[in-house]
Amino acid sequence: MDAARRALLPTEEAVALLDLTTELAEKELAPRVSEYEEAHRFPRELFRVLGRSGLLGLPYPEQYGGGAQPYEVYLQVVEELSRHWLAVGMGVSVHTLSCHALAHYGDERQKERWLPDMVGGELLGAYCLSEPAHGSDAAHLGTRAVLDGDEYVVDGTKAWITHGGEADFYTVLVRTGEHGARGITALLADAQTPGLSAAPPERKMGLRSSTTAQVRLEGARIAAERRLGAEGQGFAIAMDALDAGRLGIAACAVGLAQAAFDAAVSYARDRVQFGKPIIEHDGVGFLLADMATRLEVGRAGYLAAARLRDLGLPFTRQAAAAKLYCTDAAMQTAIDAVQVFGGYGYTTDFPVERYLREAKVLQIVEGTNQIQRRVIARALVR
Amino acid sequence: MDAARRALLPTEEAVALLDLTTELAEKELAPRVSEYEEAHRFPRELFRVLGRSGLLGLPYPEQYGGGAQPYEVYLQVVEELSRHWLAVGMGVSVHTLSCHALAHYGDERQKERWLPDMVGGELLGAYCLSEPAHGSDAAHLGTRAVLDGDEYVVDGTKAWITHGGEADFYTVLVRTGEHGARGITALLADAQTPGLSAAPPERKMGLRSSTTAQVRLEGARIAAERRLGAEGQGFAIAMDALDAGRLGIAACAVGLAQAAFDAAVSYARDRVQFGKPIIEHDGVGFLLADMATRLEVGRAGYLAAARLRDLGLPFTRQAAAAKLYCTDAAMQTAIDAVQVFGGYGYTTDFPVERYLREAKVLQIVEGTNQIQRRVIARALVR
Amino acid sequence: MDAARRALLPTEEAVALLDLTTELAEKELAPRVSEYEEAHRFPRELFRVLGRSGLLGLPYPEQYGGGAQPYEVYLQVVEELSRHWLAVGMGVSVHTLSCHALAHYGDERQKERWLPDMVGGELLGAYCLSEPAHGSDAAHLGTRAVLDGDEYVVDGTKAWITHGGEADFYTVLVRTGEHGARGITALLADAQTPGLSAAPPERKMGLRSSTTAQVRLEGARIAAERRLGAEGQGFAIAMDALDAGRLGIAACAVGLAQAAFDAAVSYARDRVQFGKPIIEHDGVGFLLADMATRLEVGRAGYLAAARLRDLGLPFTRQAAAAKLYCTDAAMQTAIDAVQVFGGYGYTTDFPVERYLREAKVLQIVEGTNQIQRRVIARALVR
Amino acid sequence: MDAARRALLPTEEAVALLDLTTELAEKELAPRVSEYEEAHRFPRELFRVLGRSGLLGLPYPEQYGGGAQPYEVYLQVVEELSRHWLAVGMGVSVHTLSCHALAHYGDERQKERWLPDMVGGELLGAYCLSEPAHGSDAAHLGTRAVLDGDEYVVDGTKAWITHGGEADFYTVLVRTGEHGARGITALLADAQTPGLSAAPPERKMGLRSSTTAQVRLEGARIAAERRLGAEGQGFAIAMDALDAGRLGIAACAVGLAQAAFDAAVSYARDRVQFGKPIIEHDGVGFLLADMATRLEVGRAGYLAAARLRDLGLPFTRQAAAAKLYCTDAAMQTAIDAVQVFGGYGYTTDFPVERYLREAKVLQIVEGTNQIQRRVIARALVR
Repeated sequence: MDAARRALLPTEEAVALLDLTTELAEKELAPRVSEYEEAHRFPRELFRVLGRSGLLGLPYPEQYGGGAQPYEVYLQVVEELSRHWLAVGMGVSVHTLSCHALAHYGDERQKERWLPDMVGGELLGAYCLSEPAHGSDAAHLGTRAVLDGDEYVVDGTKAWITHGGEADFYTVLVRTGEHGARGITALLADAQTPGLSAAPPERKMGLRSSTTAQVRLEGARIAAERRLGAEGQGFAIAMDALDAGRLGIAACAVGLAQAAFDAAVSYARDRVQFGKPIIEHDGVGFLLADMATRLEVGRAGYLAAARLRDLGLPFTRQAAAAKLYCTDAAMQTAIDAVQVFGGYGYTTDFPVERYLREAKVLQIVEGTNQIQRRVIARALVR
Repeated sequence: MDAARRALLPTEEAVALLDLTTELAEKELAPRVSEYEEAHRFPRELFRVLGRSGLLGLPYPEQYGGGAQPYEVYLQVVEELSRHWLAVGMGVSVHTLSCHALAHYGDERQKERWLPDMVGGELLGAYCLSEPAHGSDAAHLGTRAVLDGDEYVVDGTKAWITHGGEADFYTVLVRTGEHGARGITALLADAQTPGLSAAPPERKMGLRSSTTAQVRLEGARIAAERRLGAEGQGFAIAMDALDAGRLGIAACAVGLAQAAFDAAVSYARDRVQFGKPIIEHDGVGFLLADMATRLEVGRAGYLAAARLRDLGLPFTRQAAAAKLYCTDAAMQTAIDAVQVFGGYGYTTDFPVERYLREAKVLQIVEGTNQIQRRVIARALVR
Repeated sequence: MDAARRALLPTEEAVALLDLTTELAEKELAPRVSEYEEAHRFPRELFRVLGRSGLLGLPYPEQYGGGAQPYEVYLQVVEELSRHWLAVGMGVSVHTLSCHALAHYGDERQKERWLPDMVGGELLGAYCLSEPAHGSDAAHLGTRAVLDGDEYVVDGTKAWITHGGEADFYTVLVRTGEHGARGITALLADAQTPGLSAAPPERKMGLRSSTTAQVRLEGARIAAERRLGAEGQGFAIAMDALDAGRLGIAACAVGLAQAAFDAAVSYARDRVQFGKPIIEHDGVGFLLADMATRLEVGRAGYLAAARLRDLGLPFTRQAAAAKLYCTDAAMQTAIDAVQVFGGYGYTTDFPVERYLREAKVLQIVEGTNQIQRRVIARALVR
Repeated sequence: MDAARRALLPTEEAVALLDLTTELAEKELAPRVSEYEEAHRFPRELFRVLGRSGLLGLPYPEQYGGGAQPYEVYLQVVEELSRHWLAVGMGVSVHTLSCHALAHYGDERQKERWLPDMVGGELLGAYCLSEPAHGSDAAHLGTRAVLDGDEYVVDGTKAWITHGGEADFYTVLVRTGEHGARGITALLADAQTPGLSAAPPERKMGLRSSTTAQVRLEGARIAAERRLGAEGQGFAIAMDALDAGRLGIAACAVGLAQAAFDAAVSYARDRVQFGKPIIEHDGVGFLLADMATRLEVGRAGYLAAARLRDLGLPFTRQAAAAKLYCTDAAMQTAIDAVQVFGGYGYTTDFPVERYLREAKVLQIVEGTNQIQRRVIARALVR
């Protein structure tokens, strides 16, 4: 870690954490990413390694086994993981998101019972909000939960579920009441729940080592004691989680952009055309300078939003802005990185084509960038 | 073909030609593209179909079996093919490029002997300019040809050769003389020439049904009568061909962008969010409007450059501008098309993810877009 | 005129017309523009010169004194005038717009009576659609016209009227009926009409030699025989005129961009930094290449839309796209032209700062570029 | 100051300082800016007010009368001043720059003698690096200084000098030795030095209340004891100052962008079109969201670079990136702010047209944005 990056970390403990992350990433992630991506293979075992290293519960309280790290530190861990393997960095972000409802809205008994295994890394989580017909419009989700005795009977289909079919638990948003945002409730479902199943994974342009699948609930019975927060509180819980989740995606995007940028700089130093390394031609140098600029301001932007969160201040608008900026920046940076490589960049011999394919998903998840703009614009209306 | 597109065609013959192209594309290309792309399979047999339909020699004289069509018509055929299958549209553009040196610089005897089979579609061509160490800097190519009796003995490696290993003939730029642009000569090599071989195809992010491979020349003996133009004229020939080839890539880009745009519009009309089709939300509507705008001006731009060529006027600067604009436009349009589809667009269930992967190559081939900018800037220096 | 520009003109007559325009612009416009702009002085007398030269009625029939030129030629005249003096080029476009309702919707008697003086250049026109509270939302305009005998009594205020207070006649859109688009009617008002007056001109960032003012109608009595088209037909008339007017603004934008580009190229050839002309540094050369590219495709784009109009085909979508693209391109080109000049460009010693100030208005007039996007998006909904 | 902004300040003292700045700006700056800008009048007296309030020496040591504030605080003061009056914010940045060589490279005696008056606000400074023929290429400056006894005799012309003719002292970079960067030396000249004079101020597109003029040195005799640092150290001093100065311009840009954004949001809340405030239309709302996003990440970006400086870490690359990003962002934000206002924005009735004219200069000063890209690219070469 260079001095400029170190300066972004608030404590020596955080520096050590990042160093650990880098070491682990270089040793465990980097050697496997190409193979797993090509094979569409989910690295379930690596999440156990991350969990045992304390990286799966970073922003949660120590009393439940979490790392008690501020968000600005947690997110830099996500960034660093994403730099080596986006599917893993996003997996950590999604897992963290899936713990959010329990950690913030669960009662003491619920937290004591389930949270330690979740943030300790024994169990992997998934977060079930979107539905096939309601991607952006979560307030109108249709998955129905009806209370029958001390169980909710749940019917519906959740879509675009990262870790769908791989997770050990699912935080599921369901409709228990009226139409619209007020009728939504959060449940914490065990993956073994009868009636809960995952469809075959989606075949995706990239991020293939991350499983994305529909999760089907067909008469699934979930104990009422697994309800997180009150009935009707689910939408607020979901939006709160999304704010945090957007920062996770912003961090993922910066990590991916850093990887693409580093690859491009390295290639541009070595590749000679017209008698000198192409990095010394303004045409390429300026492209790299624009990439570097996006990285600097993007990282600063998501960290500034994270610090608001760490201070307990509102950060919805800033999180949406960070997600919007960093993911658009990652997309452009990946495109430009391939460009720096020229024809070589278009082959699978170099990782930049993978970065390009992966970058695109970031503009879509946790709210498309159109939704981010709407979130920001709404905050300005007052 | 709608009236606005028909208005871009100068003759009734051209309208008929485009209608034929559309019919053929819908019948022969559209049903196969996904399968071939996935299987990395080159549709050699379809080029025979195109040849028999007269689509492989459109801009060349009728006396050699060509279509005697102006470039503005030929390019719209390339665009239309690319709309259905980019690898085929680009294949036609490359084949046309490979005939260029013979058609424009060959002597009468050479043209009579080889051109009819080439423009008639019996033989498929490839164009060998780039080398592993000289992608953008063609003037310094290193493939060596030494005259030995009435044969050139050729040694060197050509890179990024579309149709490499599939073509029946190769137009090869070699060094017969001094360093720099003046020592370069064009040869027309038969694919069966001993010592000429193709490396295994590149594995690419997209455009997988188009074969790209290195072509190796190891003591390959090419008859001196296969030299096109004079010794030392090769660089001028190559640059002349590139001007035309860039228009071909611009047309490919517009075809691809049209496909992506059409898919996005169609999806946006059907997909309902927040109670109405997403096309009626300004957030998506404005995105589509920007895509439509790029399409309109991009197509107009390459056609304007093509008309200069058809009039025998200089068009180097305009061709570079058209290539630059249309391929950047295609890249952005493909990215936005996936965005309109949201998560669905990121899956292989819809063609937009393929368009995105394909679009990238267009910013690189026939001179990267950095090289286009340099070509334009040089033309402004005077 | 270079060969590439000449190639864009369909007839020898058009070539002569453009040559005349250039000659007139260089002799009459170029020497005055700075002085008039600085003095906020409207060049009324120059419009008489243009009129006598036949440049004020170019797209209208010869039988009424017009030039009977296709739109693709007329617009290139507007572009050429705008290259030398934007206020004059836009003035011609606005004047042409103000004749549109009469020429296309007037009856034979009306056309014979008024059109010759209007297209002959004796009279200058203005076009009154916008209102202070309804800039973009023309369908809800509030200027009221009530039939009283054989006169309409008109009350209301029109805003952003180019030539307001200078014009000899005003084509005014008024409400004669119900709310919304169907209650609107077009009237041709003489500037001398009692009750019709112009407010003091707006003070603007640029385009200062073009008068922009509110036009007030206070009990203004306009003869019913001055109604153009039927009652309630006004909105359709206005939209039809706007389609054509947008092409005029696109042509203005390309003319302005050409002026900015030419100035930048000229300066970049002369200015030496780091030992060579800055045009030879890729950093500046690439900027100029991007400017050149926008010019080429922008011009091609508006001409393609104009040709649709000349063929009698629908062109609403293409006109909006051309206006959107060309005016955004002009804005960026003006910004970049100042950048090429560095500090010098920021002074009033060079015209590029004026171009920048002028370019901005083009993104706003004849429908903001947001409105253009909406027009295009609506056309895609079907 | 809202909580999110307060969170960016490291101490209660800094919060108080910013509050003071806001109060002073609202009371002293805001009421005068329009008048002074229109009259091209330099607010010399206001700098005395700022000086007396302690705002002219913020980043310098207390022992010389400075504020001993970290750069991250000083810059937010510059931002806040620029939000109300760019010429004043930039004036503070330039004044700070002019003290830089003395404060960092002067010896103790020099600092004691001159620094207190300079950072105390009694004296206003200017910084003389650029020359008419060497804007971007400072290493080749030609102003000659020859030692004659204990005085340097200086001949040459400095260009683009903010406060030229108004300043009390000038930090001047001159050539005392060989060609190139190593022959440059820094001198601290009194404005009263015979032979030192200012040309008439430049007439500029904007920022008219800030005086910009050439400074001429004709046989000007400057005491050798006024040399700052060693002979030949001048280029290093200048580059060091520029790094800091670029952060100043970045802060100015964010202040200007904030003003433009606030004006646009306010207008968009009030202006009704199509039946609702335009801020509720996605077309405008998305534009504002993009403006907000640029503001958030731009501010975060310059503060991150400033914190590196405060920590004594290298920050050249980050400062260049912040200057590049924030000034491009300010330009686009000003353009978009006018767009939100529509025609009203193009008039001088609202400040947004002024913001647009002002924003342009930021892309040029302290190194054009092309130079910033080169600085960044060079740092990547290694």
